[in-house]
Amino acid sequence: MIKVSIIGATGYTGSELLRYLIPHPEVELVHLTSRSHVDTKVDSYYPFLKGSIDKQFSELKPETVFGESDAVFICLPHGHSMELAAAASAYDVKVIDLGADFRLKNIDVYEATYNVEQAAPNLLKDFVYGLPEKYRDDIKNAKYIANPGCFVTSALLGMLPAVNNALVDEQSIIIDSKTGVSGAGRSASVDKLLTELMGSFKAYNPLAHRHIPEIEQELNSASENAVQVQFTPHLIPAERGIFSTIYATVKDGITEADIIESYTRAYEHEPFVHVLRPGELPQMKHVAGTNSCQLAVQLDERTGRLIVLSIIDNLGKGAAGQAVQNMNIMFGLPEKSGLNTIAMMP
Amino acid sequence: MIKVSIIGATGYTGSELLRYLIPHPEVELVHLTSRSHVDTKVDSYYPFLKGSIDKQFSELKPETVFGESDAVFICLPHGHSMELAAAASAYDVKVIDLGADFRLKNIDVYEATYNVEQAAPNLLKDFVYGLPEKYRDDIKNAKYIANPGCFVTSALLGMLPAVNNALVDEQSIIIDSKTGVSGAGRSASVDKLLTELMGSFKAYNPLAHRHIPEIEQELNSASENAVQVQFTPHLIPAERGIFSTIYATVKDGITEADIIESYTRAYEHEPFVHVLRPGELPQMKHVAGTNSCQLAVQLDERTGRLIVLSIIDNLGKGAAGQAVQNMNIMFGLPEKSGLNTIAMMP
Amino acid sequence: MIKVSIIGATGYTGSELLRYLIPHPEVELVHLTSRSHVDTKVDSYYPFLKGSIDKQFSELKPETVFGESDAVFICLPHGHSMELAAAASAYDVKVIDLGADFRLKNIDVYEATYNVEQAAPNLLKDFVYGLPEKYRDDIKNAKYIANPGCFVTSALLGMLPAVNNALVDEQSIIIDSKTGVSGAGRSASVDKLLTELMGSFKAYNPLAHRHIPEIEQELNSASENAVQVQFTPHLIPAERGIFSTIYATVKDGITEADIIESYTRAYEHEPFVHVLRPGELPQMKHVAGTNSCQLAVQLDERTGRLIVLSIIDNLGKGAAGQAVQNMNIMFGLPEKSGLNTIAMMP
Amino acid sequence: MIKVSIIGATGYTGSELLRYLIPHPEVELVHLTSRSHVDTKVDSYYPFLKGSIDKQFSELKPETVFGESDAVFICLPHGHSMELAAAASAYDVKVIDLGADFRLKNIDVYEATYNVEQAAPNLLKDFVYGLPEKYRDDIKNAKYIANPGCFVTSALLGMLPAVNNALVDEQSIIIDSKTGVSGAGRSASVDKLLTELMGSFKAYNPLAHRHIPEIEQELNSASENAVQVQFTPHLIPAERGIFSTIYATVKDGITEADIIESYTRAYEHEPFVHVLRPGELPQMKHVAGTNSCQLAVQLDERTGRLIVLSIIDNLGKGAAGQAVQNMNIMFGLPEKSGLNTIAMMP
Repeated sequence: MIKVSIIGATGYTGSELLRYLIPHPEVELVHLTSRSHVDTKVDSYYPFLKGSIDKQFSELKPETVFGESDAVFICLPHGHSMELAAAASAYDVKVIDLGADFRLKNIDVYEATYNVEQAAPNLLKDFVYGLPEKYRDDIKNAKYIANPGCFVTSALLGMLPAVNNALVDEQSIIIDSKTGVSGAGRSASVDKLLTELMGSFKAYNPLAHRHIPEIEQELNSASENAVQVQFTPHLIPAERGIFSTIYATVKDGITEADIIESYTRAYEHEPFVHVLRPGELPQMKHVAGTNSCQLAVQLDERTGRLIVLSIIDNLGKGAAGQAVQNMNIMFGLPEKSGLNTIAMMP
Repeated sequence: MIKVSIIGATGYTGSELLRYLIPHPEVELVHLTSRSHVDTKVDSYYPFLKGSIDKQFSELKPETVFGESDAVFICLPHGHSMELAAAASAYDVKVIDLGADFRLKNIDVYEATYNVEQAAPNLLKDFVYGLPEKYRDDIKNAKYIANPGCFVTSALLGMLPAVNNALVDEQSIIIDSKTGVSGAGRSASVDKLLTELMGSFKAYNPLAHRHIPEIEQELNSASENAVQVQFTPHLIPAERGIFSTIYATVKDGITEADIIESYTRAYEHEPFVHVLRPGELPQMKHVAGTNSCQLAVQLDERTGRLIVLSIIDNLGKGAAGQAVQNMNIMFGLPEKSGLNTIAMMP
Repeated sequence: MIKVSIIGATGYTGSELLRYLIPHPEVELVHLTSRSHVDTKVDSYYPFLKGSIDKQFSELKPETVFGESDAVFICLPHGHSMELAAAASAYDVKVIDLGADFRLKNIDVYEATYNVEQAAPNLLKDFVYGLPEKYRDDIKNAKYIANPGCFVTSALLGMLPAVNNALVDEQSIIIDSKTGVSGAGRSASVDKLLTELMGSFKAYNPLAHRHIPEIEQELNSASENAVQVQFTPHLIPAERGIFSTIYATVKDGITEADIIESYTRAYEHEPFVHVLRPGELPQMKHVAGTNSCQLAVQLDERTGRLIVLSIIDNLGKGAAGQAVQNMNIMFGLPEKSGLNTIAMMP
Repeated sequence: MIKVSIIGATGYTGSELLRYLIPHPEVELVHLTSRSHVDTKVDSYYPFLKGSIDKQFSELKPETVFGESDAVFICLPHGHSMELAAAASAYDVKVIDLGADFRLKNIDVYEATYNVEQAAPNLLKDFVYGLPEKYRDDIKNAKYIANPGCFVTSALLGMLPAVNNALVDEQSIIIDSKTGVSGAGRSASVDKLLTELMGSFKAYNPLAHRHIPEIEQELNSASENAVQVQFTPHLIPAERGIFSTIYATVKDGITEADIIESYTRAYEHEPFVHVLRPGELPQMKHVAGTNSCQLAVQLDERTGRLIVLSIIDNLGKGAAGQAVQNMNIMFGLPEKSGLNTIAMMP
């Protein structure tokens, strides 16, 4: 059994980790830390866990958490993981950071994007970007994982085969993404009230979303030519899920057969990425609560554009599910261990 | 491994059985029958099962289904199980009927309620009413199970301890139930369209719902005095779940301590029924996708009424989950086997 | 034209008043006060009013608001209207208070229920309870109106004919009410987030809701025998609306014809209360955005109980719509003036 | 008073026309036809109209409907308006067709797109495309109006100023549209059930939607260069509304000031199109139930693309609202007559 702790267990990412880790056959939960709910029973704070867990939230003491765990998940807002990651270096523990602090390799870009100082620059080289479909081999031996952003995962799984194989004009990529409201977190605010959002739909930060540098970093590292993306996030009146509609102009001579072949080859051995059959279209709810990604890939002959529809659960493959997948890889477990949940339909 | 088949696998009850049975460690799926989708790939009809199952729907041939299975779940509208149950008698197979045909022991009441003839009256005595909290011992040795109705399960789990212990006036029970829309099935109709229901709420069949005789049958068999219930079902603009608010006048001398004690004792060893702590109130979503029931039990000293709030998932403890629980009991498996799902929050 | 001001215009009650008052043919808006948004353009704070209004929020100066208006609506939390009402006494202005401060005639009950001191006890006799179906004549000549609570309006319109005509056992009334989320106001809190409520359903304050004394006050004043009600409020995952299911034991000898006759007679000349035809059942969305109430009235011969289904919009007949109706009556305008909105379906 | 009839009054477009026409101060409703509900009371079929209308649906007799009306709205599926339009030519009546039969000027394109024969080709020249912002002068004198499609209205109001003023590369336009479910009509089908759609999101017909030729026809007639658009429609789990995110590459030398100036000039005198201030972003619900369009217009300096966010109500400015606006123009009424509804928030 792997001893696992969660730092910051009272947000949506933390509770989703619990959903995956409690029934995980190889995991024993040790510490679940919280700043404001120390000593509260977990199933009292999360009544949906009644009958599934008998623990309490505890204070964050790095020496205890890192010293008594084999793996630690950090679920804190950006800016809070750097000090913790440094503290962990003294312990025989693997760290999976679900925040943004170690995703961007370029320190200047990180500091400009998140408006904080990169306080642990020497650790950046030790962090592996936790997208198994791209970095599985590195993840196996990593001590530190920077778990990818949710929108970014949806975009990368949708575009990496096209960019990798130079199928599309690298400057033409437009990613129109839509997410459920949990993507905005669990903090109280008027603009996330049911009364404000139900029956509605809106874009937010359409020109300057923080996920753009992360998308471009990973597409650029897979491309010979410079990649630039247009990215617009929107909010769906639903609890969870990401639906990305991605447009890119196909290069001269590329056929639909070339495209299908590239995507099929890229994902045929991937346990969580499913390229749909021709004529099938993804529906966001079909991956809710799971670590799956479904992709529909089409060439519009009339306009010469590749159109990719990519769905994930923002809390699953976009956060907690992917984090557990990374843990499984790091500890040599079957990659689907604890991740065989099936979406709830209806 | 138990060989399991589902008759009528393309409705919501059928798909929910698949959600529980596919990852069930002791189950091998054999036949999944359908009238209109024979030979269709299951993961094409149910895209949310992509990556989880590689089977096709097949025609219903009783000799094959009953002859090659250890357990068969029947998910058909009322009136269609009687002939099938009779056919099963010749085979070494256990049958769990999720329909209504064998729930009512009184043939006249059945025929008046469902407006069909009871075509297999001699089988009625072989069917055990599949509420484990009341009939666990009988279920262990049953060949046939009549799986309870969803509203009925919610009402019985909420009221049985009170009626069993004669805590309340048996003529005063009022059950105000609210269900998600999946309770109305998967058939196409204008009144179940999202456009008609979202943002709305309504009652249906307020005076004459078919579940009343089933509730009264089971409460009466637990009571010395005649029980009569008022039952009003309503439709919530949500996919799944049942929330029952139950009112009953407490008999003279009964205290809140008596009530709490009766409920605690009734359910302390039950794996799926959770009596909430004082001050805790149930939220319907907290049991969605699970076989759990949560109960809040309170005495209103001002009015002298017991108020019970009872939540289940209509497709879980109200249908497929309870059916799998019954299967586990019938085959001597751990009762929580395959049923350790956790509700999706948010 | 009547000069109208709103004190506290930035909550849901305030914005709903604007929806009714902006197109009202006899109203000119003067002051819209706010504590935290002084000088903000109204259509910038409320983008749904773009093109409908060209005003700014202003500071609350009682002498200006009361001195320059013919009618003032107060939309503040309880405890804040008493001082304002006292200030208004010096001006030739009519005041409609949408808060709770003057609804309860018994000072002790008010102070115990709301946990504040009744600071303007001498004004209580000047406040008319603003339910036109009961107090229309008093409203015509009133200077002060205490606009009824939303749940209370739903319950009273559903039960007054039965209690008035002594059709039911006055101790047997059970009111199971369900409301959309706007009933809980516009303040930020985690438990009102879309992510927490969508797909869910819950009760709140099941034994001790503040509306109980108000319901009992008004039913008692219509009854010879003492009335006691059981009242349970629930939250529907929808924006607005109240659906009350009301149960009461019918007195000996009372027939369904008696009941129908009492309700028909009570409401046949009421412009906003519609008793449905036999067989028709109300759906909450059908009155959303309007000042209407729809009632279905049935006698369950089997149990001897009257069952009333009562729907209103909590922000319409339950708050702003009723307030405008009261204003129309006070100023001798046609009662439907500005209130001819039609619900949005779908 | 204008005598108005509706042919096909029992779908969502028909009921939305009633919402606008019943309170319209210059309209008297004459015939409301239906095939399957002749003689049914309108407020029994549409309970949300209880108290607002006292009429019955009637059979469609062209001589009566056209002979006794000043204006007739046709709300039928494509293929059904051609014969009726021909019949109307003999009467002194104005016809507004909300279907697709006369929107496409090119007969071959119409027949290929809708797979029916254009049976009234000689009437095509008499039909004016009913987008007042482009064809107001022609509408004034028209006998026949082809009311634009809902997605098309959203796209055209968003792109016409840019195309008219040659601000963008005419081959680069990508329209990513999202609509509420009422856009798919009121017919019963499993894929429109609340249970299937709630919590989900999906694209449909991503490459070949019928609205593409209509969008291109109207943009081409406003442009010197050939226009080609990419158009992807999606379904939001909400009742109504369209949100279009439109991308287009800006031509060399065009600045954000040029863009703002073009949009401001185009719409400054339009009563229903509102260009938002810098920093304001539209939310779909803010125009629900109204004839308004809100536009946010931005230049992404980083990528050189114009991004327009365009919201309408698919049943309002996208159908019934625009149809009433056209009627107002045809009869010389104030253009906002009957269209001063305010969106319901929350």
